[in-house]
Amino acid sequence: MTKVMTEIPVLDNGYVQLKAKDVMGDDLSPVNDAKVSFDRESNEFGTKEERLLNFLGREGHTSPFRHSFMKFEVYAPLMVARQWWKYVIGSDHAEQPLRSHDPLDAWNESSRRYITEQPEFYIVGENEWRSQPANKKQGSGEILPVTQGKDLTRQLVDMYDTGYKRYTNAIEEGVAVEQARLFLPSYGLYVRWRWAGSLQGVCHFLNQRLKGDAQSEIRDYAEAVNKLSRQHFPNAIDALVRD
Amino acid sequence: MTKVMTEIPVLDNGYVQLKAKDVMGDDLSPVNDAKVSFDRESNEFGTKEERLLNFLGREGHTSPFRHSFMKFEVYAPLMVARQWWKYVIGSDHAEQPLRSHDPLDAWNESSRRYITEQPEFYIVGENEWRSQPANKKQGSGEILPVTQGKDLTRQLVDMYDTGYKRYTNAIEEGVAVEQARLFLPSYGLYVRWRWAGSLQGVCHFLNQRLKGDAQSEIRDYAEAVNKLSRQHFPNAIDALVRD
Amino acid sequence: MTKVMTEIPVLDNGYVQLKAKDVMGDDLSPVNDAKVSFDRESNEFGTKEERLLNFLGREGHTSPFRHSFMKFEVYAPLMVARQWWKYVIGSDHAEQPLRSHDPLDAWNESSRRYITEQPEFYIVGENEWRSQPANKKQGSGEILPVTQGKDLTRQLVDMYDTGYKRYTNAIEEGVAVEQARLFLPSYGLYVRWRWAGSLQGVCHFLNQRLKGDAQSEIRDYAEAVNKLSRQHFPNAIDALVRD
Amino acid sequence: MTKVMTEIPVLDNGYVQLKAKDVMGDDLSPVNDAKVSFDRESNEFGTKEERLLNFLGREGHTSPFRHSFMKFEVYAPLMVARQWWKYVIGSDHAEQPLRSHDPLDAWNESSRRYITEQPEFYIVGENEWRSQPANKKQGSGEILPVTQGKDLTRQLVDMYDTGYKRYTNAIEEGVAVEQARLFLPSYGLYVRWRWAGSLQGVCHFLNQRLKGDAQSEIRDYAEAVNKLSRQHFPNAIDALVRD
Repeated sequence: MTKVMTEIPVLDNGYVQLKAKDVMGDDLSPVNDAKVSFDRESNEFGTKEERLLNFLGREGHTSPFRHSFMKFEVYAPLMVARQWWKYVIGSDHAEQPLRSHDPLDAWNESSRRYITEQPEFYIVGENEWRSQPANKKQGSGEILPVTQGKDLTRQLVDMYDTGYKRYTNAIEEGVAVEQARLFLPSYGLYVRWRWAGSLQGVCHFLNQRLKGDAQSEIRDYAEAVNKLSRQHFPNAIDALVRD
Repeated sequence: MTKVMTEIPVLDNGYVQLKAKDVMGDDLSPVNDAKVSFDRESNEFGTKEERLLNFLGREGHTSPFRHSFMKFEVYAPLMVARQWWKYVIGSDHAEQPLRSHDPLDAWNESSRRYITEQPEFYIVGENEWRSQPANKKQGSGEILPVTQGKDLTRQLVDMYDTGYKRYTNAIEEGVAVEQARLFLPSYGLYVRWRWAGSLQGVCHFLNQRLKGDAQSEIRDYAEAVNKLSRQHFPNAIDALVRD
Repeated sequence: MTKVMTEIPVLDNGYVQLKAKDVMGDDLSPVNDAKVSFDRESNEFGTKEERLLNFLGREGHTSPFRHSFMKFEVYAPLMVARQWWKYVIGSDHAEQPLRSHDPLDAWNESSRRYITEQPEFYIVGENEWRSQPANKKQGSGEILPVTQGKDLTRQLVDMYDTGYKRYTNAIEEGVAVEQARLFLPSYGLYVRWRWAGSLQGVCHFLNQRLKGDAQSEIRDYAEAVNKLSRQHFPNAIDALVRD
Repeated sequence: MTKVMTEIPVLDNGYVQLKAKDVMGDDLSPVNDAKVSFDRESNEFGTKEERLLNFLGREGHTSPFRHSFMKFEVYAPLMVARQWWKYVIGSDHAEQPLRSHDPLDAWNESSRRYITEQPEFYIVGENEWRSQPANKKQGSGEILPVTQGKDLTRQLVDMYDTGYKRYTNAIEEGVAVEQARLFLPSYGLYVRWRWAGSLQGVCHFLNQRLKGDAQSEIRDYAEAVNKLSRQHFPNAIDALVRD
């Protein structure tokens, strides 16, 4: 029996995590949630069940896919998180770090330091800088030469270093964290959150973010979500996610 | 160890069902979904965790309660189903019987009979008829005398019998099921559906439907939902459902 | 200049109403809500604007259609209302009559009678009874012979009369309204509600309920919604509703 | 008669805008949407109507407040936008600038430049830097001395300048915009969006963001939303927004 993966690393520091206990349902669930209309139940997934799922997906009868759920933990640059947020309806974000003024603060130990985690930044590798696309339908074009990439990466790391230094200095000299963070080049700042969605919601995310015109970084995350989810719902995802 | 209940009968023919595989999360889930902001995790539920849940509930920080889920199967009179629907946001109904013209039909075997289940009706018992309430804030008042109830029940059963007879006659003489059902006294007609909701959604339902001014019939169902759910989230529900 | 219709009668006693003050936006609204991304604005609707709407509809970029709104008042048999409810997400129903135990009661004058409106029922005309469809993809088939329809209508009216008489008798002898209504053949009972939705939500309803396999009665209502809405958003609805 | 304000400036470069045509409803709307249950209508807003609104707000009967709508245009730093997003359920964001790879691109003229707007940044004034709060329940504390503020502002402007220069250089030497933006200190970057919400949704936002523990910057925006909205729904907002 194949071992179930629960975490896939993405980019330089990120990951997507899906634990077995954070999955509700399997391929049979949408089948039986559809069949409740007829008071019937399948106990095994076979050809008929596959045909039913494909029928439901093709005809847009998505309600049976809204009764199964997954909860992911994601660690990704803010740039990616922003594109992800539009899929958050019905669930919610609880992000970290630097959210020192969320009302949640109140429950915390009085001795808590404001910054519970060292900020991490997404560093584009020397051979990972992409050119502008020839065809605007694509997110970006070919990889740029390494000599150019080397310089760009150096400049980016320098921005992160300077920004982070000014940020910590500001905090040390008494500036409120909520303002000090303006110094951070935050598109590259890693944030961590939990994302819970129905099977249909996850498939909607995959349909939009696996596509060639999605930004490369979020596509990497979508591929991790895809791999982790398909371990639990291979046929249902086939039925809803069109390549 | 106590055995986990998975089904509770309600009214004369109805039930609420919650299987273990249809639950995602436990009391620790909202705790840890809240703590992700600080990159911390609890592995055991103790006093601190209980305090955190109570804090979250009291202050209205409900987002961590939207990452745990339950899926129920319910069999209840249409009258009850109608009141339940307002809690269906984000999930969906797949009802039975008599939904012969839902597009779902299309996937079914060509030999399928239109009516897959014998209609069942909610029969108010002789000693279950309630008077109009003295205080309008309550749904209904005292139980009426059995002699009166006897007559009412007899009249109700007669309505069901006549309606059902005319309904089947109409179908036999070729009337479309979708029109024939107009003959049925449908408030009392049992329907079956699956209801999936987040822990917060379930608590919202409980807060409104356990109250004294809820209709007695749906309150019976809410109590079943309450008992089944508390087996999995005793502290979280305590934190969100105010008596 | 054409006068704007605000109400269209449907079935024997029903209607759909859309007043000018209950519409927010016009065809230019989704255009400009899409163009905010580029900080541009159109002041007149021309070929370019039409092309943009069609592009948005075709590619499934529906978010600009979620910033315009309409609010309808509908009076329809419960049978139709039940099919309508799945489109209510984000809005809400406030129905009448017979909802005597809704918490809303509490605000009302102490002298209020429980039943504020005479129940009305949907009576299928002698020449309106439909046969079972040959093709199950359709809701129903040909019209049945008038001689047969005459008898069916007579039986239906008799069910309504008997049910209504037992319902009022029960109330007069002290039964709580919430139970007494079990006597009513309620699929045909008219209810009144307000339905507010975004332009996208309304188009979703139209896409599903204008189709040939929708039940004839709700299709009649969908056609009324379609006519009323197209007065305000002719091009936007063309872009989103596929025949 | 008082002139209706349609735009209020916020921070150094931002604003909130609410045009008359982007408002659906007035104080009478939730009154009459509640009264539809009883088939009654008020034509004038008086003491009885005010009492009803207060009753609805106090008892949490919020559905009548979900049938009136407003659509705002907001121009605010990304830092503020991120806190706003959690209120976007049921509506949507269409942001600018720098979203060059959103699929929306595709509809645009082939000659379109990627960057349609000069980036603007939120510059904290010399006398606007706030200290860390003594009480963590508040967002931030007292204003810091101007001499210190002067230095902080200078450092911040320098970060913006350097970041923006590297960003434009990168684009000029062929880097894809979606990657180049990593150079920007983006928490301070102004973005523009449209936000449409029901009256209830707007009040929910106000209840959370007018509070003392909200971050000062978003509180400024919430006050603008409050002033603009109260011109149209003074009593309804009084009923739902608790100070």
